[in-house]
This record gives sequence, C-alpha cells and structure tokens, in this order.
Amino acid sequence: MKLPKAIQQVIESFEKLPGVGPKSAQRLTFYLLHVPQTELDSFGQALENLKRGTVICSICYTIDETDPCSICSDTARDHTTICVVEQPLDVLALEKSGKYKGRYHVLHGAIDPLNNIGPDELYIQQLVDRVRKDTQLKEIILATNPTMEGEATAMYLAKQFATIGGDFKVTRIGRGLPVGADLEYADDITLQRALEGRSQVNT
Amino acid sequence: MKLPKAIQQVIESFEKLPGVGPKSAQRLTFYLLHVPQTELDSFGQALENLKRGTVICSICYTIDETDPCSICSDTARDHTTICVVEQPLDVLALEKSGKYKGRYHVLHGAIDPLNNIGPDELYIQQLVDRVRKDTQLKEIILATNPTMEGEATAMYLAKQFATIGGDFKVTRIGRGLPVGADLEYADDITLQRALEGRSQVNT
Repeated sequence: MKLPKAIQQVIESFEKLPGVGPKSAQRLTFYLLHVPQTELDSFGQALENLKRGTVICSICYTIDETDPCSICSDTARDHTTICVVEQPLDVLALEKSGKYKGRYHVLHGAIDPLNNIGPDELYIQQLVDRVRKDTQLKEIILATNPTMEGEATAMYLAKQFATIGGDFKVTRIGRGLPVGADLEYADDITLQRALEGRSQVNT
Repeated sequence: MKLPKAIQQVIESFEKLPGVGPKSAQRLTFYLLHVPQTELDSFGQALENLKRGTVICSICYTIDETDPCSICSDTARDHTTICVVEQPLDVLALEKSGKYKGRYHVLHGAIDPLNNIGPDELYIQQLVDRVRKDTQLKEIILATNPTMEGEATAMYLAKQFATIGGDFKVTRIGRGLPVGADLEYADDITLQRALEGRSQVNT
C-alpha cells in the first residue's frame, strides 16, 4: 500500500523542518486529517503569507511588519545603546524580560568557520557602519550566545569597534550560573565564568 | 515589540499540533523565514489539499486516494482474514512489516469511556455488518494497541463476534517482549503477557 500523494506531500514538508523526523511528520499529518478544512486552509495561507507579511528592518535587521521596525522608529527608546544579538528571536526574548530599553542589531547568525559562515555572511559590516555614524552612542552590549561561535563573534566585533575608537564602551552580557541552577552540576567553563563575573554584595 | 501578524499566525497554527509547544512553534516559524517562498507555497498548498486528495475506503475505512482503497480492491490479497486496527497509520506499519497479506478494518480509535468514546463513535457496527455478510472469512486478527483502551476494544469486539457465531476464529496479536528489549527493565504486565504467550521451541 502506497500513501496517497496528498498525504505524502504534507509528510515531506514536515520532514524538512528542524527536529521533525519521519515518524513525527507522519503523526502530525494524520492528526491534520481530522482537523476541519477551514483550519487547514488558514494554516496553509498563513505559511504562504509568512514572508510576504514581514520585512527586515534596514537599521537593526530584525524582522517586523514595517521598515524601520517598531523599536527603531520608537523615539521613546534609549538611543545611546545598541544590543547586538544573533537572531530575531533573541530580540523577542530580551524584550520579554522587559529590562532593556535601548535599540538592537541582529546579526542573523554567528561566525562559524566549520559551517562556512564568516563575517561577510552576517550583518557585521552594516553594524560597523552604523556604529561609525552614530554620534549619540555610549554603549554596545554584545549579547551573542555564550557558545563557541557566539564568543568568537563577540571577540571579532570587539576588535572591530576598537579600531573605530569612538566615545563608547563595549560590554558583554553576564555569564555565570542561570537562576535555579545547581553549582554541583555546572560545567567547568560555566563555573570559571561565574567566578570571573562575580560582583560586590551590597549590604 | 509585538510579533508581525504573519509570523503570529504561523506560530498559532503550529501550536495547535500535538506535541508542539509555544517555544517549538516559534522556532519552526523563524526557521521557515529563511526558506524559499516556493517551498512555503508548496507546503501551504499541500496542507490545503490534504483532505481534498484523500478519501475513506467504504469497505475497510482506511484513508487512501480511491474508494475502495488499493488493498480492498487488490484481488491478489487473502480474502479470508481481516486485521482490525485502530488507526490508518497502523495499516501502514503492518504493511511495512510485509508479513500480513489479508485485508484490514480501521476503527479510527479505541473505546475510551474517559474521553467519551464509545463503540458508536468508532467503525465497529460497520465491522460487525461486514463480518456478518462475509462468507469467505476464516480469521479476524484483533490488532488494537496493547493499551487499556485497545484491550477493552479487543474484548468488546470478541464478544460481538461470538454472538455472530460464524465459521471463523478470532485471534489477538501476540504480546510480550519487543525485539531488543531487556527482561530486567520490562514492566510486570508485559512479563505476565510474555509468559502467557510463550511458545514451543522447535529443535
């Protein structure tokens, strides 16, 4: 017995998604067979319109409905800091935390020589140009991931900014133990970073 | 910052799928932003056509492109056995194993009083009618899942068939230890079933 072509096509589409194997793709597809046609139509149309309804901000390169994005065009936000992140989802996560009130710059990845991603594949030149022109800038926060690639990217960026030599400081987001973690189970490098990043206790 | 509507809609559609939480839905959606538009279009169209390109077989109630399905209309298959399963995916799994050459009957679920699924919600009456009319039938294999619901359904069906009292036997698929399992880690009921289902060793 061969699967109907209509089913096969949906399975193949699901299989292309990251983290979805052949079995999950099958299960998701057969689940959708029990869903009303209107819901399938709206799912399908949402997918087709996904990229048509979004645009990359020409200032910070995040993904939004308008260009410039809602953050870059918000005059109430602090224009003296730029927070550099890898992905648009990182902007979302930081916005959710509610602590940061400045602007962003999305690199759309990290330097990763093993996967042939160098500085030219990311929005790094755009960031350097932006920093060079920005006279209000007081701080650049490097908030790339604390992975090998993220650290390498942060180091590379810090060197680039040093050559510009403007009147701003460059910082890296704090690394250490996450809230709720257990010292006993933390890895060596996290513990090293946690010790390096220790801060004064205010009494 | 609010997410663009186009993104929000895709996230919401993914979230409705079983086993996909808010974080995975976000991750899948942002992954799709990097995919070519043609691929998004074909994914969307595949979803919209999923149910239009499939039909339920009026004999065995599996899902296929034609009615009757490719198995029911295949005269080369053994017409003396019916294998009763819960889901169309079970037909697929059994076909893949290549051992079974008879026909199927798909119940589309199992009796599950806690979720308000009684015999009337399944294709049980259709199976009983089919068995009653079938003069060639020699065996009914009850291949519902070895779960509480599957066992209850198998028991219920066995009682129904007993009242028909035709010239066929009713069997249940073998239960015991799966290939590659470890006796030490098997649960009590599986071990009980494995002992009950023991077979003669041919030397």
